[in-house]
Formats: sequence, structure tokens, C-alpha cells
Amino acid sequence: MVIKQLSNVPFEETPGYEGVTKQILIGAPDGSDEIVMRHMSLKPGGATPYHQHDFPHLVMVTQGTGTVIDSEGGEHALAPGDSVYIPDNEVHGFRNSASEPINFICVVPIRGEQ
Amino acid sequence: MVIKQLSNVPFEETPGYEGVTKQILIGAPDGSDEIVMRHMSLKPGGATPYHQHDFPHLVMVTQGTGTVIDSEGGEHALAPGDSVYIPDNEVHGFRNSASEPINFICVVPIRGEQ
Repeated sequence: MVIKQLSNVPFEETPGYEGVTKQILIGAPDGSDEIVMRHMSLKPGGATPYHQHDFPHLVMVTQGTGTVIDSEGGEHALAPGDSVYIPDNEVHGFRNSASEPINFICVVPIRGEQ
Repeated sequence: MVIKQLSNVPFEETPGYEGVTKQILIGAPDGSDEIVMRHMSLKPGGATPYHQHDFPHLVMVTQGTGTVIDSEGGEHALAPGDSVYIPDNEVHGFRNSASEPINFICVVPIRGEQ
């Protein structure tokens, strides 16, 4: 069993992401060889790339508000308690156009964090 | 892309669990065929079984305080922002001995929710 407090988890580099921090809460170094749980925070004005990849995202918003953009460019408002499932290969992006950070859990299979 | 609000997600049966509710935020019915994201809530006095199984748990506490019990019976206090990784086959249990509910995200591979 591995227990960590979010405030002690180091920040990872996120090249190509504007105003975004990522923390690996649970991953391969903890012995988790199937699934990785990350904590993402987008500052006001922050955004992830509008992109696609061969693994899914399982997201739950824990704090703040923001927007997820779907494969047709449609924008969907997000608030705490919202979960988002993005299947493999679906184009998507997250953006924070609010004045406070938006934080969310983002879970991926191990191939999404290697 | 599937988006849901926690307050609209139905509660699942949790036979053998005292004072515990479970909601499947993202699972097979949403098209997620690798990973399942659940939201658990333990009322004051609530507890999960002290048990083991052949799949891991990736947990993050979102609200409240409680206790996770390790394979040697050791008790570890949990608070918001704490993450817990429980490997396959490790004996564990969660308990709420506080006066408010404890809520956490609990992620499992698909075989853990079938």
C-alpha cells in the first residue's frame, strides 16, 4: 500500500501545455503496472493541446470550472463532480477560461504515461 | 465523449458493505472497456469489507476523513488530497470513524467491476 498527500507529490514537465501542471499520484514507480492516476491543474488561461491518442482518459473535476472541447469543436462546461470519458483516438482538449484554477483527476492506462 | 454530473449518477448495490454507497462514474456502459472509475461514500460508521482480490485500487480522497487498514492491520488516517494505491491481492479495508461522510474516487481495471 502506498499513501501520498497531493501537496507532497512533485510536478511533472508538460511540454506543449500552457499553464498546466501535472502530478503523478499513482504510477509505475509505486508498483502500478496497469493504470496511472494523475492530478492536473489548469491555471486561468491554461489549456491542454487539442489532440488525440490511442488511449482513453477518465476524468473527474475536483475543483474549479472550465471547458472540454469535443471532436467536433463543441464546448462543454465543467464543474466539480463532473466526470468525462474520452475514448481512444477521440480528439479533445481542456481549457480554463475562468478566473480560478480548474483541478481534475485524469486516469489513463499505463501506455498513456510512458 | 461522455460527460456526467455526480449528483445524477445512480447508486449501485454494495452487498456486504455497511453504510457505503457506490456510483459508477465511468464504466463499460459508457464504452470504457479497460478501466472503471467509481465514486464511493462511507457514512459515519461505514466500512468496506477487510478483504483482498486480484485487482488493484487507485484511490483519491475528495472529501471528509477516514481510515485505511493495511494487510498487517495497521491503520492510516486519510484526508482530502490523499491518494492510496493498493496492489493486487493486498488485504485492505476502509472505515469512517468520523462524524461526516468520507468520499473518494476508486479506480479499478475492468475485471474489478464485472
